[in-house]
Amino acid sequence: MNEQLRSWNDTPTRSAVLEFLSAVTTEGSPDFVPVEARVAVFDNDGTLWTEKPMPTQLHYLLQQWKAAAEADPALADKQPYRAAATGDLAWLGAAIDKHYAGDDSDLGLLIAAVSASSAGASVEEYEASVAAFYRDARHLTLGSSYARTVYQPMVELIRMLDAHDFRTYIVSGGDRDFMRPMTQDYYGIPTQRVIGTAMGLEYDADANVVRYTSRLAFFDDGPEKPARIWMRTGRRPIFAAGNSNGDIPMLRFAQGSPRSLALLVHHDDDSGRGDAPYDKGVEKALAEASAHGFTVVSVRDDWSQVFPTE
Amino acid sequence: MNEQLRSWNDTPTRSAVLEFLSAVTTEGSPDFVPVEARVAVFDNDGTLWTEKPMPTQLHYLLQQWKAAAEADPALADKQPYRAAATGDLAWLGAAIDKHYAGDDSDLGLLIAAVSASSAGASVEEYEASVAAFYRDARHLTLGSSYARTVYQPMVELIRMLDAHDFRTYIVSGGDRDFMRPMTQDYYGIPTQRVIGTAMGLEYDADANVVRYTSRLAFFDDGPEKPARIWMRTGRRPIFAAGNSNGDIPMLRFAQGSPRSLALLVHHDDDSGRGDAPYDKGVEKALAEASAHGFTVVSVRDDWSQVFPTE
Repeated sequence: MNEQLRSWNDTPTRSAVLEFLSAVTTEGSPDFVPVEARVAVFDNDGTLWTEKPMPTQLHYLLQQWKAAAEADPALADKQPYRAAATGDLAWLGAAIDKHYAGDDSDLGLLIAAVSASSAGASVEEYEASVAAFYRDARHLTLGSSYARTVYQPMVELIRMLDAHDFRTYIVSGGDRDFMRPMTQDYYGIPTQRVIGTAMGLEYDADANVVRYTSRLAFFDDGPEKPARIWMRTGRRPIFAAGNSNGDIPMLRFAQGSPRSLALLVHHDDDSGRGDAPYDKGVEKALAEASAHGFTVVSVRDDWSQVFPTE
Repeated sequence: MNEQLRSWNDTPTRSAVLEFLSAVTTEGSPDFVPVEARVAVFDNDGTLWTEKPMPTQLHYLLQQWKAAAEADPALADKQPYRAAATGDLAWLGAAIDKHYAGDDSDLGLLIAAVSASSAGASVEEYEASVAAFYRDARHLTLGSSYARTVYQPMVELIRMLDAHDFRTYIVSGGDRDFMRPMTQDYYGIPTQRVIGTAMGLEYDADANVVRYTSRLAFFDDGPEKPARIWMRTGRRPIFAAGNSNGDIPMLRFAQGSPRSLALLVHHDDDSGRGDAPYDKGVEKALAEASAHGFTVVSVRDDWSQVFPTE
């Protein structure tokens, strides 16, 4: 069994994972959980793959917005199209940082532009556009395909949960349908188990397709995550993993189960393995980790390898 | 294989089901569909179990409203509490019929009372209340447990789809969380594959529970069904079964797949087997069945047995 977490160092964190799995899957154990209730939830950006220098979805959107600004010069003076067209990544990074600090003043502009990029498209059209991005795009600093930007130890953890008859879900603040074209290939998580932020959808009877509206349906972060988990699964998870303040309610929700494990990935790696350290947007989660009993995963100390080998 | 649809007569309808299954699951067939794309969707009330003399959820709600009117006499003069307290089923039946005829004047009162019956409860509290109903309630005309009001031929069809590696979903206008406590036992459909009308949910961090708000989140009928199917599954189904006008968009959506089967259950049984004939709320679907290529399932002619034997 230990064999399967080969990119994890032999630390108390790894032991906590193994002890949890043994406790909930060994028949006769006081903490035994039947297969149907073995639900595990994972945040995506920063938990299953790198979110630096920017979330992958933002890379996709920058390409879309740049193309839109070139096609319609009236857009080129407006944010975030101007930032995309001029490569002003600082404006975008600041908008995200502001959100995690509780200031959504620029987030509205971003959300409006996100909506505009898919409004009117059928779900199949958007799926094809996103699939093409995953095929062609290269990560902005690592230079690799996005398939190589996943955290290898977390993929091994998903495989291990699979082997113990868990149903693993992604529960992300990222757009649900932006994740779906890659989650099976990258993580082995099928499309029906991807929960995320959603644009509105409506059925177009004439064309017999489902299309995106220009409206944000919901932003799947913070207290929205436990509610969305219930809507999808009808269960309270027994395992949760996240890496930011927005994951606290989801981690706490899982902890309401009789036996649970709540992992908080901490990006503290200063060893130059490509996952630069940061605490921004995680301050509250780290401060509360001990009080809540979150198991903190140190990228530096607990992982022997960060990204997959070629 | 035919053995498994033993409550179906040997008619063209049964042949259509068998031919479809063979076409999409036989490797090398021009219509072969890989396992991950084998998604089947079923309406619930009137498709998988009887909806007469009223949808099961209404029976539950009548009990709740009657108890509420007894506890709070101010409610006893208001609809639908008055109808519940006095046993005036005609008012309720008319409200439902009006809805299916396009008149939602009484539906608003019903929805408000539905919301009030769960508002503030945690999802686990409501789950326990509903589970107690399924344990104790008896069908109003058949006198049996609700487990005995499912359509045996449809349960056999679900089993057969399971055996062919389909993922079967319920997509109902009924309340999602009212169905969840019974779908595994009655149909073998797990809780994460139940799609339905939903009350709003919010996370209560202090109590660490998810609670219902007093707001209807969405009514899962008509054109909402294809959108909700996409949200949950990220797929266009290849099989759909329904029995009312509200199922037309879902049936049509499935038919957008290269090979599909769309079943419309027609309650035309005049043989006294407990499923009285009716066309109300199905008129449009029946009128369009031929043009759209819906396969009409005649309860009278296609089913040798309607309900499970003891």
